[in-house]
Parts: sequence; structure tokens; C-alpha cells
Amino acid sequence: MRIILVGYGVVGKGVTTILSRRYVEKTRDVGFNPKIVAIADIDGAVINPRGLSPEKLEAIKQRGFPISADPDFGRPGISALDVIESVEAEVVVEVTPVNIQNAEPAMSHITKAFKTGKHVVTTNKGPLALAMPALTELAEFNNVYFRFSGTVGGGTPMLEFAKRCLAGDKILSIRGILNGTTNYILTEMSKNHVSFQDALVNAQKLGYAEREPSMDIDGFDAACKVVILANWIMNKKITLKDVDRTGIRDVSLQMLEEAAKRNSTLKLIGSIEGDRATVKPTEIPLTNPLCVSGVLNAVTFQTEFAGEQTLIGKGAGGIETASAVLRDLLDIRRKLATKLLN
Amino acid sequence: MRIILVGYGVVGKGVTTILSRRYVEKTRDVGFNPKIVAIADIDGAVINPRGLSPEKLEAIKQRGFPISADPDFGRPGISALDVIESVEAEVVVEVTPVNIQNAEPAMSHITKAFKTGKHVVTTNKGPLALAMPALTELAEFNNVYFRFSGTVGGGTPMLEFAKRCLAGDKILSIRGILNGTTNYILTEMSKNHVSFQDALVNAQKLGYAEREPSMDIDGFDAACKVVILANWIMNKKITLKDVDRTGIRDVSLQMLEEAAKRNSTLKLIGSIEGDRATVKPTEIPLTNPLCVSGVLNAVTFQTEFAGEQTLIGKGAGGIETASAVLRDLLDIRRKLATKLLN
Repeated sequence: MRIILVGYGVVGKGVTTILSRRYVEKTRDVGFNPKIVAIADIDGAVINPRGLSPEKLEAIKQRGFPISADPDFGRPGISALDVIESVEAEVVVEVTPVNIQNAEPAMSHITKAFKTGKHVVTTNKGPLALAMPALTELAEFNNVYFRFSGTVGGGTPMLEFAKRCLAGDKILSIRGILNGTTNYILTEMSKNHVSFQDALVNAQKLGYAEREPSMDIDGFDAACKVVILANWIMNKKITLKDVDRTGIRDVSLQMLEEAAKRNSTLKLIGSIEGDRATVKPTEIPLTNPLCVSGVLNAVTFQTEFAGEQTLIGKGAGGIETASAVLRDLLDIRRKLATKLLN
Repeated sequence: MRIILVGYGVVGKGVTTILSRRYVEKTRDVGFNPKIVAIADIDGAVINPRGLSPEKLEAIKQRGFPISADPDFGRPGISALDVIESVEAEVVVEVTPVNIQNAEPAMSHITKAFKTGKHVVTTNKGPLALAMPALTELAEFNNVYFRFSGTVGGGTPMLEFAKRCLAGDKILSIRGILNGTTNYILTEMSKNHVSFQDALVNAQKLGYAEREPSMDIDGFDAACKVVILANWIMNKKITLKDVDRTGIRDVSLQMLEEAAKRNSTLKLIGSIEGDRATVKPTEIPLTNPLCVSGVLNAVTFQTEFAGEQTLIGKGAGGIETASAVLRDLLDIRRKLATKLLN
């Protein structure tokens, strides 16, 4: 399986690490033989049809150069779109930064990949949040697979759990803590009685929150994940604008103290119930399995037969999210194998 | 898919309900067409190659008769083994009561099914606890599928989650609250400060504990589940005697109060770490996702890439466990479809 990797930040590096022979050999999927033939980032690309060495690229980065400075295979200035179009490969792995204004450049990368007959694995919520119904249709039209399990839950397989483990059951509703940053802030506020502002600054110091924190604290990140869950699991054709969204800026210590008196606390909950998709601070009993602390994510699926099922795990991290990319690649490989048998 | 159902208690009735047209039609698996052609219980059987009507059987039971009293298709006195041997079917669903002394009659039912070329779905922990390595080998030798997802977690797909959703990752260890009865008792003791004996009596009144409660409170049930997880997920060829097992009889209020001072509590934890398989009361921080209350079950998989992942759900119930049988039947159907393509 030849792979074009687009984006070489924390997740991109995690992908090269996890796809290196040492790790992939541990997977039992016989015949899975991934080879990264090109990596494109904002400065250009490296291209080698025989496969790239992550160690060598890492050394170039360490010396302060872009990967396109590779003396043997570097192509400074070439655009990712040109790489996707011109390099022969089966799969494009898209891991550029999230942009929920117009989803670029990821949107163009993904549609270019579809149109040139390449399967896509992405960890980028932007294109899905803004245009998931259109993108899944475009993938189908072009007869390619589109996988994005790293967009929800990081390395925790929330999408696969719902899709694959609950076969034969029916999911009636979904509720979850889908953003670790806001969960960290709310946990700090309620446990250590610090103000929202202080908890935010603390989260920024620890690297849990961005300098520009709106994406997390205004609930955009959680809303993106609600869109993905709604489309993929509940078959609802919605986009970001359809989510009724309230962030945590107005959660006060007093509100948390009131909730504590009722053995509850406030969490930023994303939910899909009936035709309503919502993100808002919600009171949750402390004994509810969904009520996890710190940067953890948790999601509860209410099912027809098997009751409520809750899945909890780390919602972020480079290597964790890269493990979701590996899962997606294995899934595509399996699908292709079955298809060839038809 | 023609099915022989062996056992017609709470789970057996759940299976007939869930396989009735009304429910199965909701599954998207095109071409899944289950038909129960025989039901055997301790008094005899009903057999109809054209499919049995659960409503009619239920009516017979309601009038106080065994199902073998069915005037059209009843076969009073015929043994389940004879039914398994003589009735044409693809799958045997084994849902008789658990027996961890010698695993009978389930053990004979399952081996008879294998030897007559029938796939087996069971919710019965007994045969697995005593002879899982031998049984999985026998199934392979006879070229049939053997599924048992209802044996761990009731309707919560703990086995599938580990096997299917964590593909490409490596599970390093497993820890879980695998028995709802003991979790209810320990929760009562710590929250309401009642003695073990009082909590047990309460659990018996509510139907959470059996009149003969040893299976639960001495940790046998949890140990059976540890055996199944160890074999199926971690590929360890162990049986019940290999589990180091301590129940909750000796957990005192004082111990729980001491733990509470450390923001922890005691839970009956089953674990598989390295070569050690253990069931014993274990101190767990209240903030640990594993620390669930009441009759809930929870299991944490520690993975190499994606960190700790915890799955929480109801661990028992007739319709819940029957939903696990449906999942297993769908899995077998899918496997058979792929096999036919080869």
C-alpha cells in the first residue's frame, strides 16, 4: 500500500513512526505492507517511489530545515496538490492543521485525492465539519474509501465502536465529553476552585489549550465531532451550522458549586438526540460513567437492546491519533481484499 | 440461517424475541435471515424445519406447560443432544445454565454441535472457563465458528471491542469490574454503610444475587470472564484453575472507610497482566474511569499506542445478553459470506 502523507506536524510524525517496520510488523494483518512514497508540507515535498526513511527526514527537521531540503528526494516548492495528482499511490493520509472557516487546505487535498482515485484517511475535522455529506458522496462517486477515525476520540476508537461493535443493535442517542481542553478547565475549576480565566491560563501553560483558545472553549471542536458522529453513526446529513453550540466561557464557580451540592458537576456535553445536535455545558451526576476528569474524553451510546454503553479514553496526542490512522489503513486494506474477491 | 436453540430461560426467550422479524429487519445486514428450527430444553423439544413461532411457545409456557407440549411440533422427552445431531441447521445457540463443576450439559451440547459441523454461539461461561483452549481447537479442527460474546459484559461488546476496534494496536493488560452483583454489594456497603451480609440480602431481594451466591461473591463468575478475556484477547491458553481468585466475603466496612480516606474504594477487579490472571478486591481511585457504581461492569484495556481505554455498560440482562447472540450470528454470517467468496 503506497501512501502520500500530507502534513508533517505532531500527528504526521506519529504516522511515520507508527508505520515504520518495527511497529507494523506487530499487526497480525498479514500482507499489510505500507510504504510512504511522498510527504508534502507547506514548504514542498519529499518523493521516493521506493519509500521514505522517517529517521533521515527527522534528522533534517532537527537541523532546522524543511523536509523538502532532503538532498536526494527533496522537491522544494512543489504543492501538496501537485504531489497528490502526480505521485502514484493508493492512499492519501491528510493530517494538516484544522481550519473551520473554509477547511483549506485540507478540503482541496481530499477532493483532489478522490478525483484522482485515491482513498483518503484524515484526522482533520475541518472538511468533515463543513461538508461531510458532500464529501462522503464524492468518495462514493469516485469509488474510493474515506476514513477519519482519528477525528473523534483521538486514539480511542469511538466511531468504530459504534459502527462495528454495535452491529444488530440500534443507537438511539449519543452524548459525550468530546473535548479534553474544556474538560480539563472545568475539572480544575470544580476541584481546585480556580476561576475560568485562571484555569484557562493553566491549561495553556501545560499545552492543553492553544494561545487562541476559541476552537476549544467556544465548543467548536466538540461541535465538529458532533457533526461527524451524527453523519457517520446516525446517518444525519448535518454540518457545523446545524449544531446548537454554547461554550464554557460563562460557566462560573458558583454554578459548579451549586451543581456539587446536588452531587453533580458541569461538563461540556455534545449530544445527538432525535433531530437535535447540541453542544452545551450540562449538569451530570458524579456517578454517571460519562463524568470523567482531566483531559479524558467519554461518549455514551444509548442502544435499543444493550442499554447505555460508555467508552472512555485519551482524546488527543500525536501517537494516539496516529494509531487511529493505522486502524483506518488496516480497514481500507481489509475492504480492498474483500472487494478483490467479488 | 437455520438455528437450533438449546435452553429456553431468560436469555433463550430474549433470543427468540430479538430474532423475530420485527427486530431483525432493523439490522442493515442484507441477507441475514435467521430461522429457529428447533428449541430444546430439559423436558424435550419443539422442532419445525419451516421455523417456530415464539408467540405460540410463549403461550404454552404461560399455561404452565413445557414447550415440548406444543401439539403440532412438540417432541416430549427428546434430548438436546439428539436434536443437535438430527435436526438440519447451520448454528446451535447454547444458552443453558452455567455449571463450573463439569460444564455440563453445555459442554456436551457444544462438542456435539462441532462434531456435526454446526457453528456455535453460546452465552454459557462454564465450558469456556473449564476448557477454552481445547474448545477453540476443536472448533477449528471441525472447521466451524465458535462465538461467545455474551459471556463477558452481557450486551456490552467487550470482547469485540478489544478484538475488532483495537486492530493495529497491542493490548498490554486488561483490568475490569466483571461482575455486577459484587459491584452492587460493594457500592451499597461503601455508600450506605451497611454490612456485607445486609448488602448481600438486599441484592438477593432485588434479584441481583442468587440464593446460592458463591458463584458471584467468591469471584468464580469474574474468574470465568478473566479466562475468556485471556484466551480470546491475549492469546493465553489458561483455564479457571489458573486464575488466582479471592472473593469479597472478607471485605469489611472498615476497609472501605480506610480506602475512602484516600479518595479510593474497593472493587472486585479481574486482571490479566503479564502471565498473571487474578480476581481480587482491589483499591481503585474514585476518579479512575473503571470506578463505576451499582451493577455496572467496566473494563480497561491498556494499549501500546492509544493509552488506556475503558468500556462501561450493563453486564447482564436477558435482552441485553440476547443482543450479544445476535451480534455473534451476524458475525458468523459475515464470515461465511467472505469464505464463500474464496
